[in-house]
Amino acid sequence: MIRQLINGASEAPLSILDRGLHYGDGLFETMLVANSKIIHLVDHLYRLRDGCRRLNISTPSSETLVSECALLLGDVKEGVIKIIVTRGDATRGYRYADNQVANRILILYPPVHYAEQNWRCGITLRVCQTRLGSNRQLAGIKHLNRLEQVMARAEWNDDDIAEGIMLDAAGNVIEATMSNVFMVENEQLMTPDLSECGVAGIMRKNVIDSAQTLQIPLKIENIPLQRLVCADEVFICNSIIGIWPVIAIAKQGFELGPITSKLMNLLKVLPSA
Amino acid sequence: MIRQLINGASEAPLSILDRGLHYGDGLFETMLVANSKIIHLVDHLYRLRDGCRRLNISTPSSETLVSECALLLGDVKEGVIKIIVTRGDATRGYRYADNQVANRILILYPPVHYAEQNWRCGITLRVCQTRLGSNRQLAGIKHLNRLEQVMARAEWNDDDIAEGIMLDAAGNVIEATMSNVFMVENEQLMTPDLSECGVAGIMRKNVIDSAQTLQIPLKIENIPLQRLVCADEVFICNSIIGIWPVIAIAKQGFELGPITSKLMNLLKVLPSA
Repeated sequence: MIRQLINGASEAPLSILDRGLHYGDGLFETMLVANSKIIHLVDHLYRLRDGCRRLNISTPSSETLVSECALLLGDVKEGVIKIIVTRGDATRGYRYADNQVANRILILYPPVHYAEQNWRCGITLRVCQTRLGSNRQLAGIKHLNRLEQVMARAEWNDDDIAEGIMLDAAGNVIEATMSNVFMVENEQLMTPDLSECGVAGIMRKNVIDSAQTLQIPLKIENIPLQRLVCADEVFICNSIIGIWPVIAIAKQGFELGPITSKLMNLLKVLPSA
Repeated sequence: MIRQLINGASEAPLSILDRGLHYGDGLFETMLVANSKIIHLVDHLYRLRDGCRRLNISTPSSETLVSECALLLGDVKEGVIKIIVTRGDATRGYRYADNQVANRILILYPPVHYAEQNWRCGITLRVCQTRLGSNRQLAGIKHLNRLEQVMARAEWNDDDIAEGIMLDAAGNVIEATMSNVFMVENEQLMTPDLSECGVAGIMRKNVIDSAQTLQIPLKIENIPLQRLVCADEVFICNSIIGIWPVIAIAKQGFELGPITSKLMNLLKVLPSA
């Protein structure tokens, strides 16, 4: 069952003039609910506020969002909450008014059940044909313009492939369709630079913080596909799955290595037995 | 007053799970209604079908769309109809089902009243800072991922500036925020190549066809900004405004020239006195 709240009301309709629908003019957060707790809630609210600031969208107050999340959740213990914040309703045309009030759309989904072996044994990735366009102004933001991800995810139907890597026009690895990518090379952790495209994920941030805690050296830079394929370890991460080790990219195999395991342990991402 | 039809029903709510809202996973057409007639209706329906094909969205039948437009219009004689077609409702995640049925969202807006001098005397353009990201797979399609246009249109509030030119990362002119761009150089008509980014407008197509009728030579190629600024004539076009001559870009002035006038006459874009 799916529950919803639009601007705080459970029965309110979505305006047909919402700029999220017309232009993808908004942002979203996808948050894991486990044991009645919204995981990394503060990080998500902080990123949402940052995205609103960058797109000049009026920021709903964190207090409002937190209390609406609680109302939406009720006594539900497990699930996924998606918050969509759009710039608000539109007249015709791209121009927006200075005093535009954002719309808040909250949706509670049932829990997602992935195979436990994704965490324990690792997953297989493919490399998507669909490339990510570069735009420094929008890079890193979790905005609603996601056609590239939709097109990339439509490239395969094989359930044995869990995720697809996306490259920029120059052939650098940026992310996967719904997750960020990390690799280990000579005991150094690396993740792509996202200053031209890609989404700066909350779990990515947590992995970066954890690397510091574990004193694992980290580099954020451009990673050509060939370098990723030659890595010692590869893993992907997002807020819902935590971390999945990668054991194959196309035909290249990888071990589930020690640095990936350390980060998985620190971040407690293994599903409980 | 604004009228609406969602999948043929005037009172139907928009699903909160619509993929247009979640990902901008859809297309739109904006059509001028004049004297109870939808201008260039067939061109719009053809482009919509082509866009659906490229994004693998199930195409609503033209008969359905035409009859829904008529129902929406009723006895209204002037206005703007926007058709939004989205891939349909979503479960969570970018993946879509093979049998997904598209949602049709039709909106009738009141007529837009621009100053008559925009046609008769020409307009001033600015050059936007916001660049267009390149993606061959999405280029030309009038899809719902329009954050770049929103950001570009937010760069100015001066009502004396009618439109803003948008460049790609390499500095080539691609389009303006809501219109396509043409220039004349040595009696040759030129318009940017849109195979990497930009929207292939219906009025652009009509101008290209008209150039052929008038035996005006036409080139479609990359146009660096500096070349546009040195042009003999510049104009912009879209389905709602028809053609507006450009008399200034930033500080560079232009004459309202003979080729622009010829095309405006053939396409009958001047507002009736």
